[in-house]
Amino acid sequence: MERVSVVTDVRKANQDIAQENRNLFEACGTCAINLMSAPGAGKTSVLEATIRQIAASYEVAVIEGDLQTTIDSERIRALGVSAYQITTGSVCHLDARMVAKAVAEFPVDGIDLLFIENVGNLVCPAEFDLGEALRVMVFSVPEGAEKPKKYPLMFHTADAVLLNKIDLLPYAGVSLDELRRNVVEVNPRAAIFPISCKTGEGMDAWIGWLRGNVKPRLCRILRRDEL
Amino acid sequence: MERVSVVTDVRKANQDIAQENRNLFEACGTCAINLMSAPGAGKTSVLEATIRQIAASYEVAVIEGDLQTTIDSERIRALGVSAYQITTGSVCHLDARMVAKAVAEFPVDGIDLLFIENVGNLVCPAEFDLGEALRVMVFSVPEGAEKPKKYPLMFHTADAVLLNKIDLLPYAGVSLDELRRNVVEVNPRAAIFPISCKTGEGMDAWIGWLRGNVKPRLCRILRRDEL
Repeated sequence: MERVSVVTDVRKANQDIAQENRNLFEACGTCAINLMSAPGAGKTSVLEATIRQIAASYEVAVIEGDLQTTIDSERIRALGVSAYQITTGSVCHLDARMVAKAVAEFPVDGIDLLFIENVGNLVCPAEFDLGEALRVMVFSVPEGAEKPKKYPLMFHTADAVLLNKIDLLPYAGVSLDELRRNVVEVNPRAAIFPISCKTGEGMDAWIGWLRGNVKPRLCRILRRDEL
Repeated sequence: MERVSVVTDVRKANQDIAQENRNLFEACGTCAINLMSAPGAGKTSVLEATIRQIAASYEVAVIEGDLQTTIDSERIRALGVSAYQITTGSVCHLDARMVAKAVAEFPVDGIDLLFIENVGNLVCPAEFDLGEALRVMVFSVPEGAEKPKKYPLMFHTADAVLLNKIDLLPYAGVSLDELRRNVVEVNPRAAIFPISCKTGEGMDAWIGWLRGNVKPRLCRILRRDEL
């Protein structure tokens, strides 16, 4: 019983702070995207390829979550985009409090699109609302077609699932059709985009979906002027 | 302060039960191996390929840890090897209590080699001692050469690191030398084996290491006779 009450308290506290983050993002007109995946699925590569295509249309910023190192935030800054590094130490996921602390030091006012790159972990990050508007998950196809069944929660809660590294499909022995069916079974409402950051295949469809879900800067300025 | 004390209590309780498991394994002459990796790195494929090569020399059994599904234990049983499935629900790692419960129902007496396949997660499983004699980690090379720096704990605590899917190296854009250097930096004492379950490359070196670390059945029987 004790364990249950501790877990419940932690979740409730997280939810309250996530809602405060969400209110802040909405007040600033910032679309926050929680980007999640297993380690090495290619979140940062997806971010790099995405930023290159949309930086002209949106003000973009990135919060990077990692156990250790600042490798990822350095990659993002090399693109001329602001990045804030959260180093979690041994904590295997971001939580709403870490994001609240980050945005207190890293203002989001004026930012159209805030990517929050979570710690690489296919399990725990899905349990913690950060206050995001959208959840986007990256899955690396060589990880295997049965993974949506084995790790259902992250797939289930994603608004979009990017099936990355499709350039490795001919060598990985994984069926894209079977993988897609397994994603749909766990989450019929998710948008699914097979992509390769390496070859660029499929990126246009994902970017199109993203543009459809994020208000462009002009709309945001107009909307503010109407207030 | 509360969070710290809860975490400390959980760790202390886990450590006590892990020691009981370890005592049991030693009393039974069973070498328990905690097999860990990120999702989709190929733990079950490594197990299948390993079991095929050693089943004639050792009595082998497997405990499978998964969030959901019994896919992995069915794959092991198809080889004629006993497998016990732990389904953790939402818990992202095995702990010593789960293993204690498993071996109460799944006796290890007579088993030379017990593989405990952990939940696919590159972070949390490394924090929980299960009572194992050896920790073996599987890392999928397409996940990227910098991962030992970003997820150091599991690499740091492993007795052996299997660098799997080297057949994908020509297509993945990952340097095996750089990856190996990064593993050594985090853990200079680990045995490192580049392997491919698909082609069989490197498997002999890993199996040789395993045989060197597990007492063969004959030795165990002799040792018992001496008691």
